[in-house]
Amino acid sequence: MGSVYLAGAGMTKFGKSADTLVELFAAAALAALSASPVEEVDALYLGAMNPEEFTGESNIAAQVVEALGVSGVPALRVETASSAGAAAVHAACQAVASGYYRSVLVLGGEKMTHLSTSAATRILAEVIEQQERRCGATMPALAAMITERYRQRYRLSRAELERALCRVAMKNHLNGAHNPFAQFQKPITREMYLASKLVSTPLRLYDCSPMTDGAAAVILTAEKTDLVVSGLGQGTGPAGLRERKSFTSFDATRIAAERAYRMAGLLPKQIDFAEVHDAFTPFEIISTEDLGFFPAGKGWQAAEAGKTAADGELPVNPSGGLKARGHPVGASGVAQIVEVAGRLRGGGGIKLKREPRRALAQSTGGLGANNLVTIVERADAARTQNGWAPPPPARAKPRRQKTAPADAGGEGTIETFTVLYVTPDGFLPPLALALVRSRAGDLVMAQGEDVAHLKIGREVYLRRLDGGYVFTVKSHLRQVQEALKELVRGLPALAHKTRRRKEEVR
Amino acid sequence: MGSVYLAGAGMTKFGKSADTLVELFAAAALAALSASPVEEVDALYLGAMNPEEFTGESNIAAQVVEALGVSGVPALRVETASSAGAAAVHAACQAVASGYYRSVLVLGGEKMTHLSTSAATRILAEVIEQQERRCGATMPALAAMITERYRQRYRLSRAELERALCRVAMKNHLNGAHNPFAQFQKPITREMYLASKLVSTPLRLYDCSPMTDGAAAVILTAEKTDLVVSGLGQGTGPAGLRERKSFTSFDATRIAAERAYRMAGLLPKQIDFAEVHDAFTPFEIISTEDLGFFPAGKGWQAAEAGKTAADGELPVNPSGGLKARGHPVGASGVAQIVEVAGRLRGGGGIKLKREPRRALAQSTGGLGANNLVTIVERADAARTQNGWAPPPPARAKPRRQKTAPADAGGEGTIETFTVLYVTPDGFLPPLALALVRSRAGDLVMAQGEDVAHLKIGREVYLRRLDGGYVFTVKSHLRQVQEALKELVRGLPALAHKTRRRKEEVR
Repeated sequence: MGSVYLAGAGMTKFGKSADTLVELFAAAALAALSASPVEEVDALYLGAMNPEEFTGESNIAAQVVEALGVSGVPALRVETASSAGAAAVHAACQAVASGYYRSVLVLGGEKMTHLSTSAATRILAEVIEQQERRCGATMPALAAMITERYRQRYRLSRAELERALCRVAMKNHLNGAHNPFAQFQKPITREMYLASKLVSTPLRLYDCSPMTDGAAAVILTAEKTDLVVSGLGQGTGPAGLRERKSFTSFDATRIAAERAYRMAGLLPKQIDFAEVHDAFTPFEIISTEDLGFFPAGKGWQAAEAGKTAADGELPVNPSGGLKARGHPVGASGVAQIVEVAGRLRGGGGIKLKREPRRALAQSTGGLGANNLVTIVERADAARTQNGWAPPPPARAKPRRQKTAPADAGGEGTIETFTVLYVTPDGFLPPLALALVRSRAGDLVMAQGEDVAHLKIGREVYLRRLDGGYVFTVKSHLRQVQEALKELVRGLPALAHKTRRRKEEVR
Repeated sequence: MGSVYLAGAGMTKFGKSADTLVELFAAAALAALSASPVEEVDALYLGAMNPEEFTGESNIAAQVVEALGVSGVPALRVETASSAGAAAVHAACQAVASGYYRSVLVLGGEKMTHLSTSAATRILAEVIEQQERRCGATMPALAAMITERYRQRYRLSRAELERALCRVAMKNHLNGAHNPFAQFQKPITREMYLASKLVSTPLRLYDCSPMTDGAAAVILTAEKTDLVVSGLGQGTGPAGLRERKSFTSFDATRIAAERAYRMAGLLPKQIDFAEVHDAFTPFEIISTEDLGFFPAGKGWQAAEAGKTAADGELPVNPSGGLKARGHPVGASGVAQIVEVAGRLRGGGGIKLKREPRRALAQSTGGLGANNLVTIVERADAARTQNGWAPPPPARAKPRRQKTAPADAGGEGTIETFTVLYVTPDGFLPPLALALVRSRAGDLVMAQGEDVAHLKIGREVYLRRLDGGYVFTVKSHLRQVQEALKELVRGLPALAHKTRRRKEEVR
């Protein structure tokens, strides 16, 4: 198999843009080409999550061909939700390694800011499993529930969690301040973090990546350059939280990382810096664990100790990450590679402790349902410049799945929860959501009757409502209240019964 | 480069289905696996045009992984509008040839029939260039305009065109009657064809492929089987009719075909049968020319002479094609390969004149904007079983495009036209549409003031209206009318002028 090299790389400034999606793609392409030893390409591979709904455009790959004046050149779009850009990079690598194309232009892009936040959130929420979506779960809500579970599992106090998340947000905003392509280029303070509004407990606005317009581009080629793509790995996981074995780790990242490391012949400790998918600050922490940089449950301490800062032992998101660079969903996976290429070539941005030779990018599709890891090395450092040797993949035999929907009711236990302050259309804040395990062992997402008394492990009553579930925390006081309500509700019927009996007697 | 072989292939029955899109994908996958020597796969490659809008689902690749119980296995979706299935096949071939994966499950699917025809048509119409869409152009309207131009260029009488189109429709319905997976399994008569309603002159309902639910699957592998994928080619072209050099041929198909033939080392005459993208009957005729089976302008005669019938010298769409098998957009490109595999293995369906050893499939994305050609051969017949040797692609250097929108007005000439009887929401039938070349040489799509006097080459007046264009056919009578109107319109101004002059005189 032939090696795959990285030639030019470039991107648009991320943020709110007046350009159309096609114009953003074209601008990124020209930025990548302008600094590239390879100026001619055989095909275009585009990553975009949902141009149909974000901008009403279809057949986007062919449209970009036209905008670049290369009519006739093959082009296709790859989609894996929010990791679409990374998936386009991987598909393009395969195309080059196969010998079918010699040089390929890979693009990632999305345009989102022209929509209202609620409209964009609704589109992004289509990746959420249906039962969970129906309860009002949003991406921040699910991320928050994972965070609460992480806190409980690794025994962090609320203050410890807050400090760690704040530290990640501050670090990424500081890094973004040195990145001229970042959406946010100002450092934030601890006070600003604490003053930012709660989106879904314990996550604040500064824990969430923004809505962004932008595009990024890289040229992959069989011609030898200074950078080689030495490791690729992809993994999938269930869409629904309730289908997962773990709520504090993403199997999809672990699978992708293991494969990429094996292909590159590297260990996590040999990576000099990483760009990871920090759509939410806790996901950066979890990713650094899933990628093997830190042991499970220790990522938060590493972040707090500054190990992932630019001057730390393993800089994470020196570009500012999705948090500060911005997150035009389909673009992010390619933008990570643009950052990686720039850094490995000695480009600008916040200064790292040591000159990097090997970097890793990790991208997440949906709620950790379709994740990719890419390792890029300086050709003079890489072992794999003599050709690809992918590790044997874990083969699987597809089989018919029984899809018995959970039919929970009665009593259960809270596995994790959040209180959502920014709710989707049709749901009033504050909205309590919990993942509840029924006595029968089924996990279901449920709305809370109120937002008090929420705690992992707490017992609840669970009942169906409109195809979803509602839970009520069991407490002595509530039990008395419920009994009283029940009694009051029963009074008219009782009175009626008494009346009828009297009439019968008469 | 390693060779790519075809293992199992299967599909759901096409038509109206009560299953969800994910269930359709899973059923097709299991059909392909049940008859496959390769039962374990390393990854899933899905083709789907627009599950987000057709069924409100995102991250569909990860969803199908779950439905097949192979959690963790990498999966991605490929999209090139209506050729998405074929593009997924090509991307998967590249992945296998690169050695990155050994065996890959390729799926194509779409679910459309649960929507109203107008809702589904609106989604499909997103591939249409915006100025043309704004005039009310639909896919059948654009296909009709290409057909009218073909008729004029190759000097067919209306009766000759009608006979040729009818012949294609009857052939494909007859073929479909032998295909248990086809949506329509009944032959149609000439009388039925002529009685079917006009959709957009000269195209009738029986010239158009239907709305369909369905999925298809093939397994591609590096392990030697009886069938080898020996040729792959892809090409693109402008979305807009008005951007094209030719209205009677698709450059994207020609580019794709040339590349696929060169890769397989074959000439068109060595192909034993073909599955082509007959979304509209005239497109089958044009494809047989673009693929080199018949000279340009001779495809209609070949069809009429029965050369493309099952017992003809080059059977085309023995499966029934999109016309009778049905057209769940993202599924069609994979379904063609399923049909090709079945036939090359001696499977059922309408009997062909001779036992086939080499077959070609051609798929069209949008209005010929992103087309793919795939050649599959029996391994004992193929020259390429010792590995891939793709021809050198036509490299292109992307450049900044000037996007000066046409600003036509004044006088012009009809290049082609149609009268649309099934109009999109907001447009009343009958709607005349014409591609008009202005005196300045710009091509614009315009709505007609009425449906009379339409003819290629006729002179028209062109004026802007609501960001679009309206045309009026120049006729002597009309010229007199216009002059009179102009005069009447001028009268108040004239009176005013006269009054002012009188006042000045006073």
